[in-house]
Amino acid sequence: MSKKAVILLSGGLDSATTLAIAKSEGFELYAMTFNYGQRHLREITAAEKISHQIGVKEHKVLRLGLETIGGSSLTDKELAIPHNRSPQEMKEEIPLTYVPARNVIFLSCAVAWAEALGTGEIFIGVSAVDYSGYPDCRPEFIESFEKTANLGTKMGVGKGKIRIHSPLINLSRGEIIKKGLSLGVDYSLTWSCYDPRADGGVCGCCDSCSLRRKGFREAGISDPLVNSE
Amino acid sequence: MSKKAVILLSGGLDSATTLAIAKSEGFELYAMTFNYGQRHLREITAAEKISHQIGVKEHKVLRLGLETIGGSSLTDKELAIPHNRSPQEMKEEIPLTYVPARNVIFLSCAVAWAEALGTGEIFIGVSAVDYSGYPDCRPEFIESFEKTANLGTKMGVGKGKIRIHSPLINLSRGEIIKKGLSLGVDYSLTWSCYDPRADGGVCGCCDSCSLRRKGFREAGISDPLVNSE
Repeated sequence: MSKKAVILLSGGLDSATTLAIAKSEGFELYAMTFNYGQRHLREITAAEKISHQIGVKEHKVLRLGLETIGGSSLTDKELAIPHNRSPQEMKEEIPLTYVPARNVIFLSCAVAWAEALGTGEIFIGVSAVDYSGYPDCRPEFIESFEKTANLGTKMGVGKGKIRIHSPLINLSRGEIIKKGLSLGVDYSLTWSCYDPRADGGVCGCCDSCSLRRKGFREAGISDPLVNSE
Repeated sequence: MSKKAVILLSGGLDSATTLAIAKSEGFELYAMTFNYGQRHLREITAAEKISHQIGVKEHKVLRLGLETIGGSSLTDKELAIPHNRSPQEMKEEIPLTYVPARNVIFLSCAVAWAEALGTGEIFIGVSAVDYSGYPDCRPEFIESFEKTANLGTKMGVGKGKIRIHSPLINLSRGEIIKKGLSLGVDYSLTWSCYDPRADGGVCGCCDSCSLRRKGFREAGISDPLVNSE
């Protein structure tokens, strides 16, 4: 019987690639998505399609009322989503799309589900190479979280069984896409845009769209999502 | 203007005491309670009453679907709640009432709200003296969580502004109650029992009831909640 793993799946290309990597490593897949009041709810539908395409044992969508907390332009429609930021700006400034403590919360919930499933294996698709300046995408955070989870859970305490895998952490956008394509990820199913247009298309210039475009350019192929629009 | 603090408030006597301590330290109080599918939902009503009695700026009840994750007799009615465990057993064995990663999740959400409010001050009412064997009530976990939160949040990164206060960590049950009484906590409003009877009374013999009884005995006073039943 293969070992179970919980994979955080947003519906974007990073997490889709991470799901495919966990599969290629022989894990039985438990994908976890959050309905946290994000304005780009379309990513949840994307996560469902990706789960189906890659083949998961279970896909759980957990409700989390972060829109009642606010503090981010992803959960508070009064706050604007920044557009057209340069790679340099992304590295230097944490944008308004930062959701307070999001990856701490998401990882904590993933640990909870993993424990209930009897496993300590958790995957998260963060990259510290090309990213939007979020502090919770850096390796020092991931390592520290793993340590904390091993101190504060039944699965971890005295046994150190919680393992946070972040297979994309040192990959550039282009490398992520090439890796995913080699594993059969259908990127036309993924969704990245923070700020979809009224007609449902991508905005093309939020951080998430910019990083996605950079990735496909680096990988030397065209984005099937943009082409299909 | 006084400094804001987020206080995790379950509705039990520890968190009520913690709320009163934060008030005595001059903080403006933001109390946070979770509706996480716990079977003893009555504690949420208790949290509302305590918030009102002690006087908070805001009381937020966050929905969190942990009952869809399970793995605990507090969120899964198929699992039994242990009764009549001795203090020794509580120290040695993590019981079925353990909710996977609960304090990791609760603290993460508290950090999120604190960030959105523009503060890094968070209070949690854990005690490592008389407790139910939960790993997420120990000081090494709390310290590690603080470190992680300071690495993974905008408020923390490079500034170390997240501070997890656990003022009860070294207090016995009796000391907690004496402290609370000196600060005017009305313990008749608090709720501790995991397993309320059909008529709404306390079971009297779950870990939480046992620890509560021990506390009032040590403090040398009678429990106003039990007396009012």
